[in-house]
Amino acid sequence: MTTVDNGVNVQALLDARKALAGAPEAAQFTWRASAKWQNGVHSTTTVRNFFGLGAEQAHKSEAVFDADHPEVFAAEDNGITPIEYLLVGLASCLTAGVASVAQNRGIQLRSVESTVEGQHDIRGILGVDSDVRNGFNDVKVTFKIDADASPQDIEALVAQSQKRSAVFDALTNPTNVTVEVAAA
Amino acid sequence: MTTVDNGVNVQALLDARKALAGAPEAAQFTWRASAKWQNGVHSTTTVRNFFGLGAEQAHKSEAVFDADHPEVFAAEDNGITPIEYLLVGLASCLTAGVASVAQNRGIQLRSVESTVEGQHDIRGILGVDSDVRNGFNDVKVTFKIDADASPQDIEALVAQSQKRSAVFDALTNPTNVTVEVAAA
Repeated sequence: MTTVDNGVNVQALLDARKALAGAPEAAQFTWRASAKWQNGVHSTTTVRNFFGLGAEQAHKSEAVFDADHPEVFAAEDNGITPIEYLLVGLASCLTAGVASVAQNRGIQLRSVESTVEGQHDIRGILGVDSDVRNGFNDVKVTFKIDADASPQDIEALVAQSQKRSAVFDALTNPTNVTVEVAAA
Repeated sequence: MTTVDNGVNVQALLDARKALAGAPEAAQFTWRASAKWQNGVHSTTTVRNFFGLGAEQAHKSEAVFDADHPEVFAAEDNGITPIEYLLVGLASCLTAGVASVAQNRGIQLRSVESTVEGQHDIRGILGVDSDVRNGFNDVKVTFKIDADASPQDIEALVAQSQKRSAVFDALTNPTNVTVEVAAA
């Protein structure tokens, strides 16, 4: 018998699935980020703490992300644009899903690469034409996967990853977002 | 007359609005990211090139982002989770918008801070309950702004930023996302 090891602890995830089925309140997570304006359209956003399993949790280390706009937007390009962070989230979510599903199905992965392209008509955000939306018109993800599996099984892996992806859902379906200003 | 300087070149943006009104094809941007699976649910995503103004463009430098899952997900926490990248994008997009709108309205900003919280029931992604969605249930952004303006003007700044935000639109409205596997 071959031992498949993609580095995913599927047993722990299956155990968590069983445990959370009887404890829905423990499954309620709150993810957080804090942003600070630097100058112009440059900001830094920090991610460290979150809430889950009924308690405050923290990542092993704090992560800080610069966002800015490129010089063709008359900005200083001190970081990628905000909308590109959505592509980072999408690619990484689907990739994690492919690894998890492969582990669960006994498929050894050798390499998983993907490219994501988001089509964006910037007339929306510039206010040129109110019929043009502000966000992406559409997004395309293309995977290249080298694994010990048939092309059909690889297609099925990717389909299952998509079906369970938090970020795929967040981009393809609407979410309520409330924006408030705290009293000074 | 006071000179307001938030570091945003609003004149260039107004000029771009005018120029792109007559050249919609130049307004078509393609943003890109490339992801590579590392091990387990850890991946790295690289952002460098994009297309816009009718030509290939590049950021000043390449940016690489680690994504992983925390130890409570039986993973190694080599980076923030994919879904947290959406919060980074949202916070930074709204912050850039606040700076741009303030500049356009002659409002001097002193500080802009925000916190973003995304509520996430992880029973969706774990497949515990198919009635639970995979993505966020809802997201809340809270701004704290110190500026040379009335509370009403600050509220209006934030509202206008939200109205023109690429990421706010991408999260609150659906986008078509296609996922394909390239032939090996």
